Parts: sequence; structure tokens; C-alpha cells
Amino acid sequence: MSIRRYDEVTPYLNEAAVHGGVAYLAGLAADDISQDVKGQTRQTLATIDRVLAQAGSDKAKILRVEIWLSDMANFDAMNEVYVAWIDPDNVPARVCVESRLWDAAAQVEIMVTAAV
Amino acid sequence: MSIRRYDEVTPYLNEAAVHGGVAYLAGLAADDISQDVKGQTRQTLATIDRVLAQAGSDKAKILRVEIWLSDMANFDAMNEVYVAWIDPDNVPARVCVESRLWDAAAQVEIMVTAAV
Amino acid sequence: MSIRRYDEVTPYLNEAAVHGGVAYLAGLAADDISQDVKGQTRQTLATIDRVLAQAGSDKAKILRVEIWLSDMANFDAMNEVYVAWIDPDNVPARVCVESRLWDAAAQVEIMVTAAV
Repeated sequence: MSIRRYDEVTPYLNEAAVHGGVAYLAGLAADDISQDVKGQTRQTLATIDRVLAQAGSDKAKILRVEIWLSDMANFDAMNEVYVAWIDPDNVPARVCVESRLWDAAAQVEIMVTAAV
Repeated sequence: MSIRRYDEVTPYLNEAAVHGGVAYLAGLAADDISQDVKGQTRQTLATIDRVLAQAGSDKAKILRVEIWLSDMANFDAMNEVYVAWIDPDNVPARVCVESRLWDAAAQVEIMVTAAV
Repeated sequence: MSIRRYDEVTPYLNEAAVHGGVAYLAGLAADDISQDVKGQTRQTLATIDRVLAQAGSDKAKILRVEIWLSDMANFDAMNEVYVAWIDPDNVPARVCVESRLWDAAAQVEIMVTAAV
């Protein structure tokens, strides 16, 4: 089976690879990390919508969501935006843990695996 | 291919999504986080057994296990319970790192990917 | 579909499980963790090359790379070795976060999902 790759934004990162009916997205984050965690979550989920569309998928087909918060104290704020975004008829499996991210101002990073 | 989803326990989390012969489980943790890390690991693995069974799989078909410990000092205690649980003829790939979890008392979270 | 497993190195870890045209590698790290982060990254990627070959894959077929650094300050050093290693025509999706690892001297752990 062939692999389709999407949106190389740096020399070292594609936003998604698709193989065997599954889209493996990269860990994605907000473009503007000066925003608070809700704003960063909204931006990240908008990017995920775009990458899923390019890969021939959408949020109703998400299998699993992996979330890293730089501070677990932001769980409720992130989750409020997340719950408003997901398809209530197609709720993904999920994990959310705390890790320091690529920049001290980055508060949330989200990685999706989806059916295509 | 269709997606089957299992056990929505909150508005934002299913315990597993199955697609293309693979079960993508959520990050699962103990129900009773007042227990020590061994007790929490036992509870978590029992939940994984239950979710795998619902998804039409079992621990002999696990492909990969991802483990987060809130304190890496608990590695040996967690691992003792883990080694007693896995099928010795079907040992999964695994990763184990340290991350703060959803509650300060939560000491271990485990996420499984399995063949169905 | 059957599952093929590779290189059980301890009673609790296989280096890869292959199922449905996908190789799920374990989180892999350097054999010699006295080296600096560049040396550890080189060793880890050499191990990944070996495990991918055993699994019937190679780095051009990697779908997603997950990287844990014990200190995000080592991002640039790790990334220099990583960029030199990847196939520039087949750049994987990737995520990189900070987590304490199994040993205080271990500075990088890398987990690969690849097409077979």
C-alpha cells in the first residue's frame, strides 16, 4: 500500500501520513502561542479540521486523540473547547497528560489518528 | 470501513474505537486512585481486559502499550504487576515515560493498541 | 490477521509488533546513555533502522515518529541528528514532548509507527 503525505511545513515534519485507511497526524499546536489555552486549543482544532480534510477524513472519523498540556491545571479550559468541537455522535478515544512542550508559551499540543 | 465505538463514559471520551482490524483504546486509569501504584496498575489492567473483550480482542492481541507514570520511581512496582499480567507468548511493544496525570493522586495511565 | 513480533529483549518488551501492514515499534533508546543527546539520538535511530529492517520496513515508510526528550532544551541538538537521518522525500508526521525517562541519564526516547 502506498503512503500519502501532507503539508510538509518544515524540513522535518509532515502534518499527516495516510496509509491503509488511517491518517496519522502530527502533534499539532496553535500558530499564535500568545493566546490563552482556550484560544490555543481552538486554533489547534481548526488546524486539525484542515489537515483531516486534506487527508480525506473529518472529525467524525477520529479514532483517537492524544493531548499534551503544559500545565494540567488547564484541563477544564482545554476540555470545554474540546467538548464543543467533537462530534457528539462520534466521540473518539482519548488520552491527556502533562508534558512541557516545544516553547514555554505553548500550552497544548494535540495528535489525532483518524479513519480515512 | 465503519468505526465501532465502545463505552462512552463521559461526554468527551470513548474507551475504544475499532477500525480496520485495530482497536484504539483510550488512556485508562484506576477507578480508585487512593490505592498505591500496584493497586492502580491492577485496576487499570482489569479495565483494559474488559474493554478489549468488548472490542472483540484480548491481551494476546495487543500490539503496543503506552504507559505514563506520575513518578518514574514507581517503575519497578508498576512493572511487576504488568509482567504478571501480559501473555508471555505475546509480549507487546511498549513505551513508558513520566507525565503528571489528570489528578495528583493518579499514578499510572495505560493506553493500548490491539489487533481485533 | 496474524501478528508478528520482533526481538523480545526483556521479559516485558518486544521491539516491534506487525499487524495489518503496520509496524508498531516500542519506545527505543540508546544502549549507551553516557553519551550526549546527539550520540543517544544517533544510537536510537540506528536501532530503529535495525528493527524496521527486521519488520520488513525502512525509514522511507515511517508514518509517525513520537519523541520524548528528558529536557526540551536539547530539542535543537536532537533535531539536527534527526533531520540528517530521515528520508527527505518521505518525511514522517511527528510529535516531540518533554518527559522524564526510565533513567535520569536517558535523554531521548523515540517510538515509530511504519508501513510494512
